[in-house]
Amino acid sequence: MARVVQKFGGSSVADAESIKRVAKRVVATRQAGHEVVVVISAMGDTTDELMDLAMQVSPQPAPRELDMLLTSGERMSAALLAMAIGDHGLQARSFTGSQAGVITTGTHGNARIIDITPGRIASALEGGDVVIVAGFQGVSQDTKDITTIGRGGSDTTAVALAASLGADYCEIYTDVDGVFTADPRIAPNARRIPKISYEEMLEMAACGAKILHLRCVEYARREHVPVHVRSSFTTKEGTWVTDLEEGSAMEQAIISGVAHDRGEAKITIVGVPDRVGEAARIFEAISTIEVNIDMIVQNVSAVATGRTDISFTLPKTDGKAAIDTLNALKDSVGFEDLLYDDQIGKVSVVGVGMRSHPGVTAKFFASLSEAQVNIEMISTSEIRISVVVDGEDVDRAVRAAHTAFGLDSEDEAVVYAGTGR
Amino acid sequence: MARVVQKFGGSSVADAESIKRVAKRVVATRQAGHEVVVVISAMGDTTDELMDLAMQVSPQPAPRELDMLLTSGERMSAALLAMAIGDHGLQARSFTGSQAGVITTGTHGNARIIDITPGRIASALEGGDVVIVAGFQGVSQDTKDITTIGRGGSDTTAVALAASLGADYCEIYTDVDGVFTADPRIAPNARRIPKISYEEMLEMAACGAKILHLRCVEYARREHVPVHVRSSFTTKEGTWVTDLEEGSAMEQAIISGVAHDRGEAKITIVGVPDRVGEAARIFEAISTIEVNIDMIVQNVSAVATGRTDISFTLPKTDGKAAIDTLNALKDSVGFEDLLYDDQIGKVSVVGVGMRSHPGVTAKFFASLSEAQVNIEMISTSEIRISVVVDGEDVDRAVRAAHTAFGLDSEDEAVVYAGTGR
Repeated sequence: MARVVQKFGGSSVADAESIKRVAKRVVATRQAGHEVVVVISAMGDTTDELMDLAMQVSPQPAPRELDMLLTSGERMSAALLAMAIGDHGLQARSFTGSQAGVITTGTHGNARIIDITPGRIASALEGGDVVIVAGFQGVSQDTKDITTIGRGGSDTTAVALAASLGADYCEIYTDVDGVFTADPRIAPNARRIPKISYEEMLEMAACGAKILHLRCVEYARREHVPVHVRSSFTTKEGTWVTDLEEGSAMEQAIISGVAHDRGEAKITIVGVPDRVGEAARIFEAISTIEVNIDMIVQNVSAVATGRTDISFTLPKTDGKAAIDTLNALKDSVGFEDLLYDDQIGKVSVVGVGMRSHPGVTAKFFASLSEAQVNIEMISTSEIRISVVVDGEDVDRAVRAAHTAFGLDSEDEAVVYAGTGR
Repeated sequence: MARVVQKFGGSSVADAESIKRVAKRVVATRQAGHEVVVVISAMGDTTDELMDLAMQVSPQPAPRELDMLLTSGERMSAALLAMAIGDHGLQARSFTGSQAGVITTGTHGNARIIDITPGRIASALEGGDVVIVAGFQGVSQDTKDITTIGRGGSDTTAVALAASLGADYCEIYTDVDGVFTADPRIAPNARRIPKISYEEMLEMAACGAKILHLRCVEYARREHVPVHVRSSFTTKEGTWVTDLEEGSAMEQAIISGVAHDRGEAKITIVGVPDRVGEAARIFEAISTIEVNIDMIVQNVSAVATGRTDISFTLPKTDGKAAIDTLNALKDSVGFEDLLYDDQIGKVSVVGVGMRSHPGVTAKFFASLSEAQVNIEMISTSEIRISVVVDGEDVDRAVRAAHTAFGLDSEDEAVVYAGTGR
């Protein structure tokens, strides 16, 4: 008998019929003898609809009130799921994030989980209940106000609950079969990865893979919670995200997967005077607006001009703020021009195996060259190599790397119609 | 400067525009220097829609979960109203019933308010906030589960909050101008009652007047909270419900109003053997199914047959349960037949003045007789006389009594299109 946390996202519970289907799955797990906690998102588009409603009432809704409004969505689906499970003759009770003991910081819309005090739901579990917890929400430690946990909130809540309840594992149900070696819509020969380490999953998530949020994976790694990412539409095994098993098959595959990210833009500051401290001033200014800089490249300054170009990438959504901040510095720093390019893409190969296998970088770059893809910027970590390429070359680059590292399967991956991933 | 509680019902906040209109009213009250607490219902048909959703998921939704689901509605409108008020530059914060300290019994769907511990909202008021409280809900004293307070819940919450916060008065905003001397859709010459005593309002509510729930009026009477029932569409004075002012104009009007009720049915048990204890057995059986019996009539038994008929009235919704219970007794009690008539109506005249004015009964019955209305059953209290008549005669009976007791105004009452009352 295991203690299991299962998380279902909005598309899994889009309507009454879906809720009943999820209920059946949960009931099956419970009837197999396991203790079950379900973390659930709002139904379908509910969160967007509530946001629309807020916008109709107020152009700048107060953050505290927006959280009060949005958290109604998860509350509703949790109650409905509990009802559906009750119809199978099992005891099921729903709880808000607050009732489940999810304690957070006070930042409305993007609160961070500080702690989980799961006493009430642990008692319910021990009493034999199936416990349903409204995801995406908690309560502020300081103000006792309801908070929402930001992107990936329900996944992170599920993993955090699993850790605090000493669960054996956490299942994240989604609309694809697991983590793939590349996005199947770009690389039709991509395969499901049966097992991936926390470190590799972190890199994949940081480099654009949308299946699990960075924050959720980091929490799982820190607390050593095994995470099983699988489809809510089938009973097939998905992808297990776990601690790295030394010397295992995990380490033998040199590259686990290829990730891509179209969400970044590149800013180039042209003709920066090559004086001590200029680069520092530029990045200090950027840091005041809390923008996440990703990759930075500074060319060696031209002897003739005594000037250099500095390029960096950042999320597109931060582009305008960064440009405005830099424009304000133009006179004081004395650079010549500011270029903005949002038609770039980032392609990354990830694998713990590259630590022990030299030549990965060369193989990667060779495959890109053969595919006629120009490399604009490069960034690496111990288990990842990323390149910035032209946006139009992203798909070709992903496929080239995928093939070069032997990741292609014989069959085409099945892509579910309408999953939108 | 006063401390005011204002309650707005679902039709007052049916959509984003209505919410903004309500916000303007609340802001005006606050800017006049008063401390304001707003109790708010769910938007428009939200509660019905959530109920539908529950029915789609489960034919018999668990009561605890139904309360978790339904209370989302009030939570949403409270948050939206707080946002709208915030746009006027005022601080406003929304609270659930639980956060506002509304402590109730554990009966889901029909919880009773036990106590209010308004510490958190009192602090908010003293800090200058406009406080918005989600109506219709509280938290169970025993289980700490969220509960809904049953019919009239938001009105009762408003009055209870007013009492616990020492408010100067409670305003109930609705879609009519106040309490009328009769339903204007039946008696076009009905007038708004400027002031009515708690006792008379209790009788009016018990006898079919739908404007304020019995429970709410009883709470107001017990705690001496003045209640102002008024329209959310205009700024006109409505009806004040207060303590009776001895010797005042309140006592001079012999009859304050005429109420009617089409929600009852009549059951006649024909040919009950005239033995000691038979009537007791019948009503004991009825009491086990917790049905509210209203009026009872037992004829003197016929000498020839030694049998009598017993009639009583009850809510139509309890009709089937009562009939089933009585049928099961047929052999043991030995009555001859069971008749069910749901085409009846009850018409009542209410007024504290009748205590000091004899002849009210006679005048009432004479007016009915002139209108060709036959009286089937009679029931009275110190300040009320009720008759059961044929359903088709209700309107005529109401108008006849209204005229006989001098309640007709010269003008026709304004009935707002689409108010549905």
